[in-house]
Amino acid sequence: MKAKAAILEEFKKPLVIRYVDIPPLLEGGILVKMVSSGICGSDIHMVDGEDPRVPVPIILGHEGVGEIVEINGDKRDLNGEILKKGDLIIWNRGVVCGECYFCKVLKMPYLCENRKIYGINRSFKEYPHLSGAFAEFIILEEKTEILRLSPNTDPNVIVMAGCSGATAVHAIDALEDNLLDKTVVVQGGGPLGIFALSLAKFQGAKNTILITGSSFRKEIAEKIGIDMILDRNTSAEERLNKILDITYGRGADVVIEATGTNKAVPEGLRFLRKGGTYIIAGVASPQEKVPIDFYEVSSKNITIKGVWVSDAEHFKKAVSFVEKHQDLFATLITHKISLDEINYGLDLVRERKAGKVVITY
Amino acid sequence: MKAKAAILEEFKKPLVIRYVDIPPLLEGGILVKMVSSGICGSDIHMVDGEDPRVPVPIILGHEGVGEIVEINGDKRDLNGEILKKGDLIIWNRGVVCGECYFCKVLKMPYLCENRKIYGINRSFKEYPHLSGAFAEFIILEEKTEILRLSPNTDPNVIVMAGCSGATAVHAIDALEDNLLDKTVVVQGGGPLGIFALSLAKFQGAKNTILITGSSFRKEIAEKIGIDMILDRNTSAEERLNKILDITYGRGADVVIEATGTNKAVPEGLRFLRKGGTYIIAGVASPQEKVPIDFYEVSSKNITIKGVWVSDAEHFKKAVSFVEKHQDLFATLITHKISLDEINYGLDLVRERKAGKVVITY
Amino acid sequence: MKAKAAILEEFKKPLVIRYVDIPPLLEGGILVKMVSSGICGSDIHMVDGEDPRVPVPIILGHEGVGEIVEINGDKRDLNGEILKKGDLIIWNRGVVCGECYFCKVLKMPYLCENRKIYGINRSFKEYPHLSGAFAEFIILEEKTEILRLSPNTDPNVIVMAGCSGATAVHAIDALEDNLLDKTVVVQGGGPLGIFALSLAKFQGAKNTILITGSSFRKEIAEKIGIDMILDRNTSAEERLNKILDITYGRGADVVIEATGTNKAVPEGLRFLRKGGTYIIAGVASPQEKVPIDFYEVSSKNITIKGVWVSDAEHFKKAVSFVEKHQDLFATLITHKISLDEINYGLDLVRERKAGKVVITY
Amino acid sequence: MKAKAAILEEFKKPLVIRYVDIPPLLEGGILVKMVSSGICGSDIHMVDGEDPRVPVPIILGHEGVGEIVEINGDKRDLNGEILKKGDLIIWNRGVVCGECYFCKVLKMPYLCENRKIYGINRSFKEYPHLSGAFAEFIILEEKTEILRLSPNTDPNVIVMAGCSGATAVHAIDALEDNLLDKTVVVQGGGPLGIFALSLAKFQGAKNTILITGSSFRKEIAEKIGIDMILDRNTSAEERLNKILDITYGRGADVVIEATGTNKAVPEGLRFLRKGGTYIIAGVASPQEKVPIDFYEVSSKNITIKGVWVSDAEHFKKAVSFVEKHQDLFATLITHKISLDEINYGLDLVRERKAGKVVITY
Repeated sequence: MKAKAAILEEFKKPLVIRYVDIPPLLEGGILVKMVSSGICGSDIHMVDGEDPRVPVPIILGHEGVGEIVEINGDKRDLNGEILKKGDLIIWNRGVVCGECYFCKVLKMPYLCENRKIYGINRSFKEYPHLSGAFAEFIILEEKTEILRLSPNTDPNVIVMAGCSGATAVHAIDALEDNLLDKTVVVQGGGPLGIFALSLAKFQGAKNTILITGSSFRKEIAEKIGIDMILDRNTSAEERLNKILDITYGRGADVVIEATGTNKAVPEGLRFLRKGGTYIIAGVASPQEKVPIDFYEVSSKNITIKGVWVSDAEHFKKAVSFVEKHQDLFATLITHKISLDEINYGLDLVRERKAGKVVITY
Repeated sequence: MKAKAAILEEFKKPLVIRYVDIPPLLEGGILVKMVSSGICGSDIHMVDGEDPRVPVPIILGHEGVGEIVEINGDKRDLNGEILKKGDLIIWNRGVVCGECYFCKVLKMPYLCENRKIYGINRSFKEYPHLSGAFAEFIILEEKTEILRLSPNTDPNVIVMAGCSGATAVHAIDALEDNLLDKTVVVQGGGPLGIFALSLAKFQGAKNTILITGSSFRKEIAEKIGIDMILDRNTSAEERLNKILDITYGRGADVVIEATGTNKAVPEGLRFLRKGGTYIIAGVASPQEKVPIDFYEVSSKNITIKGVWVSDAEHFKKAVSFVEKHQDLFATLITHKISLDEINYGLDLVRERKAGKVVITY
Repeated sequence: MKAKAAILEEFKKPLVIRYVDIPPLLEGGILVKMVSSGICGSDIHMVDGEDPRVPVPIILGHEGVGEIVEINGDKRDLNGEILKKGDLIIWNRGVVCGECYFCKVLKMPYLCENRKIYGINRSFKEYPHLSGAFAEFIILEEKTEILRLSPNTDPNVIVMAGCSGATAVHAIDALEDNLLDKTVVVQGGGPLGIFALSLAKFQGAKNTILITGSSFRKEIAEKIGIDMILDRNTSAEERLNKILDITYGRGADVVIEATGTNKAVPEGLRFLRKGGTYIIAGVASPQEKVPIDFYEVSSKNITIKGVWVSDAEHFKKAVSFVEKHQDLFATLITHKISLDEINYGLDLVRERKAGKVVITY
Repeated sequence: MKAKAAILEEFKKPLVIRYVDIPPLLEGGILVKMVSSGICGSDIHMVDGEDPRVPVPIILGHEGVGEIVEINGDKRDLNGEILKKGDLIIWNRGVVCGECYFCKVLKMPYLCENRKIYGINRSFKEYPHLSGAFAEFIILEEKTEILRLSPNTDPNVIVMAGCSGATAVHAIDALEDNLLDKTVVVQGGGPLGIFALSLAKFQGAKNTILITGSSFRKEIAEKIGIDMILDRNTSAEERLNKILDITYGRGADVVIEATGTNKAVPEGLRFLRKGGTYIIAGVASPQEKVPIDFYEVSSKNITIKGVWVSDAEHFKKAVSFVEKHQDLFATLITHKISLDEINYGLDLVRERKAGKVVITY
């Protein structure tokens, strides 16, 4: 039995479609027929060789929904339900060891020292080879965190919960207060930013504000009811003043960086009121430094929190949230493509010409 | 009736001793005969005109202990006790409005928009003129937060709780977890740093580590039982390795900046383990920016918290802590001087030739 | 100038309508013409003499919206905006001292030792006499926490934010985690319970569940989209099983008591999963004890939190939430009556024949 | 090869000494030669058949320190260090699955649905039979959480960290604020209570208060410097007044129940100030209910937290704390006995004639 797979054989080159043998399952292994996968902004950095975690050759794809074809052993999902053949499932891209200092003592499994990530740091050369979502089948190992989905769930919508959704939940969980009456600014209107804004809106924020330069993303933000959209092409002064205007001159309570670039930080810090919180959620690769005067941080009593990936808790919350708001998140999907069109899909994301690009199998 | 006072009449000039009329008390006012005051590191920045809050002429001095001479009305201390003539008291340097958004809604009175600070932003020209601790008498206004001290308390020791102590408590309060089994690094061995280390030690930290270049401060740190002292004059690599060695290669859980300079930040960030917290507590004046790659912050899931001044809660905790550990804090005092010697005292602090310099009256 | 007022002259007797002189304003005082007030469930306990805080004679009414007629001095609202004649405002029923241990040190002003409450503990005999909302005019004292409302706000809807709304926010604020993916049970479908459920729903809860015996309240809960309504007249076993069914046998994450009676507690504790939180928000008068085996609390690692009244933060969040969801809360109003009909309104609430009863002036 | 073991063959009967075969190790298993074990107050309930978790026959003993004799495979301790033959180790009594909802999603492994506990719920009939500390050897399974100890650590002292220590840390971790300036009352002077008081003292509490009826335990409390000891044989009024006297009439900030009985709860609630926290840490078996008026809980805005057992984080913190304060905890040990004297040791604990009773091998 063979599986069609899109393989990154060399950085900065298009993925290549190959037919790959499906190996037998080890104890605890699960063979899954892919139903839907999502292209993430970070896939672009991976293709380009900018993410130090990624080996080649590799099957990318870290957001996926599929149907169980075979399980070698007993396995329960995160709700404690026994999984069986035919179940529609979503899984957490990161598999953690559960034993290291970060897993056991700090209870921060997202920082696990042995975290293996489907579609990110698992070489195609190693068993089970089918370790990314950009293939007809994926083989999940025993320790994978899985949620069984209701058959009514739209696989193409729920797939977003797996990466940008879970990371956005991590960002919201990192806040010390709830968002009632709060003003939340998100820098960057890609899936991570839109997800964070959606969460803020349904966590009771008073003002949700998006900074973006893409008219495409403005439209999406309008559809989901974001309160204010500020154009990145206006002057920094203008944007700041708009925010001060609706916050009685104090600034935003929370700013979330979802642009992927250090350059957003100085403006983000200026947006904040005294005592506010800045979440750095998008910066995912090493880059040029940006100059900071920490007097701004100290004298404004600001909290800056880096948010790195996500864990079972964030993942489960994200899935639950998307299930409650499927109509909302359906509006984010702008393209459904086949696996054969994967390079076209990557181009769409690279050129910011898309909301969410989903691959159906 | 006249009070001897040391007045900063011009920035970058020595304070001038003058004899000043003691004005009558307004409703709620309290006349206090100074018993002890402390010179704070920030006084140097103020004398030099680097702190944008300070007008001239001014009576500096924001840490003080004194005896009540007269109260115009009823006044209770923070414990709810009625204050009376003859009581030995300590007061919070900041007087907050209790009405603004930061006081009322956010419950962050340290960020009060109308905060007035004895010895910092109160001009000598305005009533009650005697608004700093570097004078024989000070007049406290009605809203001042006061604690009555036991007659057994050593005024020269407890005085430290007023500024560096309360700010150090604010830093510790800003942490999300307690310090049991934690490794805490403090950059800078001035009163703020030493106080933070003392708190860490008595909050159950496993390893307390001081970074300092001053042999003088090393001695103080040794006296109070700090676990490890790293010399700022060694190489950055050496210091980092020492910290990695005792943390199983992971780095410190908490780093507290108490140097006053942005330059300490990049090294502080490197010291941290993944998921660790960096407190910026010392940077108190605008200065040259320092370049940061926020990928370090995001990928290490770091929290950076600016800590600005302190409020009644921090102040009360600091006083309580010093009262419990008077012997410990007595070792920090290296110089007791008279008000007439104030410029000598300022020089000692400026040249880092002192632990705590205390003025007795 | 006179104001019509409904006065409780004797416990357990109907309120009496009187015409009362409007006294001159003290420094900082604000004369407000009432536009809308709400009858709260606790008003019944007060009329009946069961609330130890209430003196007679008194003008009850602690939820109100009105228009400023006169201000004696400068006054800002909680956003820092200057208030002026003609402004539509809502105010926090509790006026706190801002000076005591609870206000200053613990930052829990809802526990203020000197809290004065409009319509609850202010005798009609004392200046300014017009200290409750059940009158044509009310006089607010200087320290009152006020929010200016947009002229578009419906006064009859926003009035709910003042007491049950703010207390419900306090309950939600008391939770340690956000509500994403959580199951929240509320016992009791009065305004407090409905408000808490609405908050839970818009804070991302997965399942919101109401326990009530009133078909009237069931209808309201259905209108606002509560996920599950359990009848108090079924067996306790049935109710528990329904909750276990949708929580994989684990129980609810959060249970909120909004019934006003100790008797709800044992069932509430049974509903909880291990590690869950029980909020006691409704019990507002001393009553017969209920037997508890704290082994259930310890072995299930349960947190029980009493929630008492509310403060400026809760109040402001509640107003903001109602403003965002006016349509939702409008469905709660079942009766609009005049001040002359106040005793009829109290009867409706006493007999649980109403959602929210609002008085318009 | 045989191991001497004390076996509970029948509830309410003395343990019987038997010589037991040491079985071969499974993959990941660790054979440990016992060096020290502690008798815990809960062992008495287990012997008496009052703990529903305990089967017979069983080898009790859930606090232990030992030396590794053999490891079948690679195993790291909680610091990530490779363990090897000859290492002195301490282990967490509870072994959690790491996969269930409580482990994975809630990150509360102490509530793990599959928690197996050495010396508590592991029948002697099942492999590896040697699953309790009251034997010359114990066999630890692969998932056991282990810490390697410094050879300088006193095994008899550190053994306390395993159960009462870790549970006391759990109690302290459950508090929302740190203990600076706080008044902490502990009800019950057994190992759990003394440990909690020691933690409170070294977390900066202003007043640490013990309630006990045992003159024996009073002496221990005095030795470790507890600030106030109140006799359970005085009147409840007297005890309350002593606490009110030193808290300006407000009551204690934190009360920790460490008596094991519901009966302590009503007095504990009365001790609390408004807004205070009550930790139920000692109640470990089902018992007669106690009547509560939850109006006290709501109107005082009290938090009650059940604390159930402990996890890797609590365990690691406890070990670190005891290592820092070995002299302090050494004073708690009143009896060192041999395994043959185990029934005598149990009697000492049952009759409250001992501080800590330790078995050396």
